[in-house]
Amino acid sequence: MDALGIIQTKRDGGTLSKEQIDWFIKNFSESELIPDEQAAALAMSIFFNGMEPEELAHWTKAMVDSGVTLDLSGIGKKTVDKHSTGGVGDKVSLILVPLIASCGLAVPQLSGRGLGHSGGTLDKMESIPGWTASLSEKEMLTQLSEVGGIIAAANENINPADRRLYALRDVTHTVDSIPLIASSIMSKKIAEGTEALVLDVKTGLGAFMVDFVQARKLAKTMVELGEKSGVKTVALITSMETVLGNNVGNALEVSESLDVLEGRGPKDLIEITLALAQEMLSLSNTDLDPGEVLASGKPREVFERMVSAQGGDLSKGLPVADYKKTIGASSTGYLSKLNCRSVGVAAWRLGAGRSKKEDSVSPTAGIICLAKPGDYVNAGEPVMELHGDTEKCFDPAIDALEGAIEISDSAPDDLPLILDKISV
Amino acid sequence: MDALGIIQTKRDGGTLSKEQIDWFIKNFSESELIPDEQAAALAMSIFFNGMEPEELAHWTKAMVDSGVTLDLSGIGKKTVDKHSTGGVGDKVSLILVPLIASCGLAVPQLSGRGLGHSGGTLDKMESIPGWTASLSEKEMLTQLSEVGGIIAAANENINPADRRLYALRDVTHTVDSIPLIASSIMSKKIAEGTEALVLDVKTGLGAFMVDFVQARKLAKTMVELGEKSGVKTVALITSMETVLGNNVGNALEVSESLDVLEGRGPKDLIEITLALAQEMLSLSNTDLDPGEVLASGKPREVFERMVSAQGGDLSKGLPVADYKKTIGASSTGYLSKLNCRSVGVAAWRLGAGRSKKEDSVSPTAGIICLAKPGDYVNAGEPVMELHGDTEKCFDPAIDALEGAIEISDSAPDDLPLILDKISV
Repeated sequence: MDALGIIQTKRDGGTLSKEQIDWFIKNFSESELIPDEQAAALAMSIFFNGMEPEELAHWTKAMVDSGVTLDLSGIGKKTVDKHSTGGVGDKVSLILVPLIASCGLAVPQLSGRGLGHSGGTLDKMESIPGWTASLSEKEMLTQLSEVGGIIAAANENINPADRRLYALRDVTHTVDSIPLIASSIMSKKIAEGTEALVLDVKTGLGAFMVDFVQARKLAKTMVELGEKSGVKTVALITSMETVLGNNVGNALEVSESLDVLEGRGPKDLIEITLALAQEMLSLSNTDLDPGEVLASGKPREVFERMVSAQGGDLSKGLPVADYKKTIGASSTGYLSKLNCRSVGVAAWRLGAGRSKKEDSVSPTAGIICLAKPGDYVNAGEPVMELHGDTEKCFDPAIDALEGAIEISDSAPDDLPLILDKISV
Repeated sequence: MDALGIIQTKRDGGTLSKEQIDWFIKNFSESELIPDEQAAALAMSIFFNGMEPEELAHWTKAMVDSGVTLDLSGIGKKTVDKHSTGGVGDKVSLILVPLIASCGLAVPQLSGRGLGHSGGTLDKMESIPGWTASLSEKEMLTQLSEVGGIIAAANENINPADRRLYALRDVTHTVDSIPLIASSIMSKKIAEGTEALVLDVKTGLGAFMVDFVQARKLAKTMVELGEKSGVKTVALITSMETVLGNNVGNALEVSESLDVLEGRGPKDLIEITLALAQEMLSLSNTDLDPGEVLASGKPREVFERMVSAQGGDLSKGLPVADYKKTIGASSTGYLSKLNCRSVGVAAWRLGAGRSKKEDSVSPTAGIICLAKPGDYVNAGEPVMELHGDTEKCFDPAIDALEGAIEISDSAPDDLPLILDKISV
């Protein structure tokens, strides 16, 4: 068994055997036997030639087996999690985790930090004073058992193969390969030990998968992988054409999540959150109406307990940016387009996101969309509020927003948010 | 400009601009800015998506420009060289260089060492006592001017980009890509400063390009690249179905080359040598009959002078192996097949070749084919003589020869040696 033969098999359109996959992933994650250039050659061959379903299942299992798997059997609750492929303003987890925990289930959400124009859940939570993403395995189990929800960082012992491979894909332009994306996401979720999983696969201008057909293919691949691994899995394909909710940026998104938990908040964010909650409850055979549970106020309490359990203190309030700048409507009429990728990039330039893994993010920087597509605005009326930590940060953000807002005489069509559902 | 964007362009089927290529090759050969994993991802993308003719010409020029180019304008002779893609028993350069030098031309053959089952010209020459492959640029120019021919190692300042890229392709299974092979060969020959070049592109069982169509495509690519770069280039496609001549191994091949230079030697080796010589003379507008020149004995004298100029002494005789073993014919009849790849591997296992660049080779190990396809042999009659430095080396070599020799009742067809000629 050697790396060259494995690269040759895949490069020449063959199917890797379970033995080849196990050997490759084991040696890649544990030793220096496989240098990065060989893994890059294999990843690029996978990009071009894809993977068969069985092959991908072996690959995913080998990634899971490269590290530890959490054992959640002792927490005394059914477990269910959600994963989103990422979008602009996607703060759904912050509402969904306490909502599902309020229904008597446990949500073991191990999450990552953001890179590029879409934010990371941990970055958002870290804007809460005192909150820490690091939990020991014992702390995770206790919190799941007692509070029902965690949002925490995956520790170093979970899926080391993915950690090394992801970093490599990032620099070799092999990120956007459906089998590699699917196995990366699913191996992390399988290692997390959840019994059920709902995937929010976003598509559209602001999503990683711009194209609906590709998004659907990714969703199908992940659902099949989940089911093959004993995790009940369903995916919703949801639209990411415009910002989800109104706020983009770390503390700004926590603030908007609190709005929803307190019975306010934007319609689109509530709609997607409740749809995902409904799928999570169905997968766990829990006959509750998530809208009623949300309205009960219990999820707000659970969120408070989740935050406290991880050292956070909401009573201190959320940090607010020192500098703000509003952007006015260029004319009078209906806001017909709000390009969420531009808004994501602008928020990122303001300081809400990072370019490199090592960068830190600003808790306060971001954007509030004061108007959304369909709203009628008057010329000069503020449509966007930019938040930043310096005076200088606004110009590059405003450049990114060039052409991002369109205003027209007629109201735009009301587009559906939830486009499709994929299950086995 | 960054490596990721360049990988993306090629991965997604685009054409690299001259600026992208120059930036990539410059940074790859000079700095650590481009790590091996990024170069591997690009090489694999080139394997899958190929290169346009103009793009490949830019790529090749950038490789040439990564190092120095020899200036042969002062030597007072026309220059012409030959390159072979490598075969088993291919010792043609040892005869051809002094033959062409005898015609008043200069042959600046910078060559490499062998890897795998086909031997390297330098390894063969190094079996001559005292001979050294290293020449300074000044020594090269003097020898070309005075003797007319050199066979020498390319120095470190020539084409450093190719040196690093070739080592990388070797471990990432991206060797067999026509644009990468063509640019690697041609960039070295262009940097050598020759005015004209004849390519011997071998095809068949013992060749790197087993398939005729692929060999022809490689030849065409290289001829076009040569002409674009101002080097008059012609290629012959020649058959490598069986061993060229009878001897395989370093000193054994020098010995057979001396046979040809002295008016003896095997027919097939003479045929290919004269055909290549004829093309070299034609490219240089030199109206001489290479067969007559060979018969004059002058090339034998020039070879002697070439060897002496590089410290070698033929009067001491060539080294001979301590151990020999013959293989007898398994039955009586016509030798109908002699698999040259098996013979190459057997010679390599005897010690004539290396597995890794750092390995040394045996000057004496090798194989003499006592019979060739078409010869009538009696059962038990020796058909092969194995030469080795230890008693133990024979068994693995004999394993490699399993099924390599076939004997049948009827004589095999006489196959042509020279299959095609490619010129612009």
